[in-house]
Formats: sequence, structure tokens, C-alpha cells
Amino acid sequence: MTDLVLYVGNKNYSSWSFRPWIAMAAAGVPFTDRVIPFDFAAGNPEIRKVSPTGRVPLLQHGDVKVWESLAIIEYVAELFPDAGIWPQDRVARAEARAISMEMLSGFRALRNACPMNIRRTPGSIDLADGVTEDVARIETIWKDALARSGGPFLFGSFSAADAMYAPVVNRLEIYRLTRDETILAYMARMKAHPAWQRWQAAALAEPWIVPEDEV
Amino acid sequence: MTDLVLYVGNKNYSSWSFRPWIAMAAAGVPFTDRVIPFDFAAGNPEIRKVSPTGRVPLLQHGDVKVWESLAIIEYVAELFPDAGIWPQDRVARAEARAISMEMLSGFRALRNACPMNIRRTPGSIDLADGVTEDVARIETIWKDALARSGGPFLFGSFSAADAMYAPVVNRLEIYRLTRDETILAYMARMKAHPAWQRWQAAALAEPWIVPEDEV
Ligand SMILES: N[C@@H](CCC(=O)N[C@@H](CS)C(=O)NCC(=O)O)C(=O)O
Ligand SMILES: N[C@@H](CCC(=O)N[C@@H](CS)C(=O)NCC(=O)O)C(=O)O
Repeated sequence: MTDLVLYVGNKNYSSWSFRPWIAMAAAGVPFTDRVIPFDFAAGNPEIRKVSPTGRVPLLQHGDVKVWESLAIIEYVAELFPDAGIWPQDRVARAEARAISMEMLSGFRALRNACPMNIRRTPGSIDLADGVTEDVARIETIWKDALARSGGPFLFGSFSAADAMYAPVVNRLEIYRLTRDETILAYMARMKAHPAWQRWQAAALAEPWIVPEDEV
Repeated sequence: MTDLVLYVGNKNYSSWSFRPWIAMAAAGVPFTDRVIPFDFAAGNPEIRKVSPTGRVPLLQHGDVKVWESLAIIEYVAELFPDAGIWPQDRVARAEARAISMEMLSGFRALRNACPMNIRRTPGSIDLADGVTEDVARIETIWKDALARSGGPFLFGSFSAADAMYAPVVNRLEIYRLTRDETILAYMARMKAHPAWQRWQAAALAEPWIVPEDEV
């Protein structure tokens, strides 16, 4: 089979890159990644060369380019139908897609005010309008899914839905946005996952600082 | 089979409702719709009763609720695998999903400044920052897809990707945002589709005016 190459941004900061990366890594899909460091001052010319949207992540599969984090996940789930990327049960799968798309389309207050930052030391910040509401909705989503599935992940074993919320696990931790025991326990399980550990090690080894994302 | 009920907002204004509605109607999927008129002053209590996000569209299928426009489309595509909701070819399907998710997650300048409004008389407005860039990217997406498929719709026959961009067809028309012949011809084909005509007739028959969306 043709090699899958996933172009990602800085692992310390690129929340959209983290999503398909951890979905593929956790599912055991064979792929190579290539980091294109952000260069906001220069308008990200390297990313523009690779990606039709000028954004990462971008999956290259032979001649085929797939952009958008969740479209990449859908494409890989079709290539590897037995990898368990989506839940097997149709209703669970519908819910997993619904919450994945809620992430893709929403939670802008949290995403804007609280950038993902793997190496940041945990500590509170002043909360912008809307962040508390976003966190409350996310806690509801996670608790409903965990209660229904019994865990350890949102739909039992690790799925695309956990991947789509992985950057939020980092945000809730580093900005100390939750005290809920069920939520903290789920976050601990996510961070202990071998795929998370691999991404984190690579992020910590990166030299780049992006001032916009240091809040 | 259990009935599918799609809860939608005002047909004149609810762009997210229009997407799964026209995807299902164009594919010949049997369903009933229920309009819940917006009541922004009161915080949309009727929508909150039905939908876990407090937003429409919402698909009810027996006990199962599916929210998020594109998750509804994916669910219905799984229920009716032969209805042609997604392109048959795997690569075309990946591109259709990528552009559908670009719509779901992006084009905020256009979406904020230029609300869908089926009954509005065409006429230009002063363009907010970013609208021109959004329109340019959409023109590129449509032209690439039409050139590759040969039309008449983005991936040949009408698919979920056309559905996800249907409200943009209205926006480009009513705010006079394009003069490109290829784009105008595609828009004319979209508006001539029987499913579009049915939605439009229902929108024109609605009595409600939403001042926020009259720009
Ligand atoms: N909706 C897109 C978002 C992609 C995105 O915004 N990526 C950021 C990095 S996390 C990026 O490439 N930014 C560079 C730029 O906008 O110039 C997805 O899900 O893939
Ligand atoms: N990402 C959601 C967006 C849904 C959405 O924003 N719906 C609007 C109507 S078009 C709504 O219900 N607004 C009512 C409110 O926010 O109170 C989807 O794709 O379904």
C-alpha cells in the first residue's frame, strides 16, 4: 500500500494536527509524519506549498491530498475499517460523529482564549467570556459518553471522538479549568495513552516558541 | 423502519437546517420535518427542549437523537447506503468530506456578515473584512470540483457536498458576491433542483422576520 504521510504543525501547539495524528497512532495505522513549523511572520509559505487551504493537518497518500482533520480521520477509517477508529455500534458512531463535529464547528471561546500548549506549566488565567460555558458543555458531553459506554474512553476503547477532544484535555489541564473527578480521571487516562506519550515527547523536544500561543 | 423526523429552524433563515434537509430531500430519503421558529428574545426554549445543544438541526429517529448538520447527513448516508448521498469513488468522497468540513469549521466572515435569507431581494452590501477571501476560496473549491467531475453538481450528481454549500449559493446570489460565469451557472442548477424549490416555497410562505438576519 502507498505510504501515508501526515503533515502537521508544531507538536507543542498545533491542536488540529494532534487530532488525526493521535487517532491514527492510537489505531495502529502505519504512517510517517512531517512537521512544518509555523512561520506566522512569513505567512506560512511552507504550509501553503503542501496544503490547498494553507493549513495543517494535511494527509498525502500517493497523489491524493486530504485536508481537514476530521476528513483525514474519515478517510483513514475507510482505508482501515478494522482499526476501530469509529465505534462499531451505529448509534454510538452517530453520537461520536456529532460530538466530533461540535468540536470542529464550535467551542470558539475556549479555542481562542486557551491555546493548546503541551509544555506549559499548569496555572490559571483570567477567563474570557464564554469559556466557562464551553467547558460546561464539554464536561456534559464527556460524562454522558463515559456513563453510557462505561469507559475507559468516551465510547469504550479509544476512538476518533477521543482524538477530536485530545487538545481540550491539554487545555483543561494547563489552564486548570476543571475540578470534576470523573473528568480529571478521564484526562489522566488520555494522557497515559502510549500515543499521547509519543506526541508529548516530540512536543517537549521542539525548540520553537510561538508568542501568540503563550498566554 | 422507524420514522425520521428532522427538526429545523425558520426555512427562510436557518442555514444549518437547510443542509441536511436538502441532502435528504435530494436523495429521496423519506422523512418529516418540523419547523421550530427562532425565538431569540426568549433564548429559544422550544429548541432547547428538543436538542442537546440548544440548536437546530436535530434528527430524531425513534429514541435516537443526532445533532450537528453533517453528523445527521453521515447517519442518514449509513441508513440509506444506496441513496448516493456521498460520491461512490473513495477519493471523490474524501474531497467531498474535506470541503464539507471546511464549510462546517470555516468561512466565518461570510457566515457572520451575510446571513442566508431566502426571500431577500438581491442587492450589494458593504463587505466586511474577510468576505472577499472567503468567496474566493469557495469559488476555487467549486471550480476544482466541477472541472474534475464534469458537473452538473460538484461531484457529478447531487451529493452531501452540494448540500453543505447550498446556503452559500443563496448568499452569493442575494448579496451579489460573484460575477463568475461557471459559478453563476452552478448556482442556477442548484436553485433549479426540485428539492431547492420545495424548501424555497416553504421559506417564502413563512410569516416570521428575524431583524438580526436582515442586513
Ligand atoms: N478546520 C481545520 C483547521 C486547521 C487549522 O486551523 N490549522 C492551523 C494549525 S492548528 C494552521 O494551519 N494554521 C496556519 C495558518 O492558518 O496560517 C482542520 O480541522 O484541519
Ligand atoms: N454546527 C451546527 C450549527 C447549528 C446552528 O448554529 N444552528 C442555529 C440555526 S442555523 C441555531 O440553532 N441557533 C439557535 C441558537 O443558537 O439559539 C450544525 O452544523 O448543525
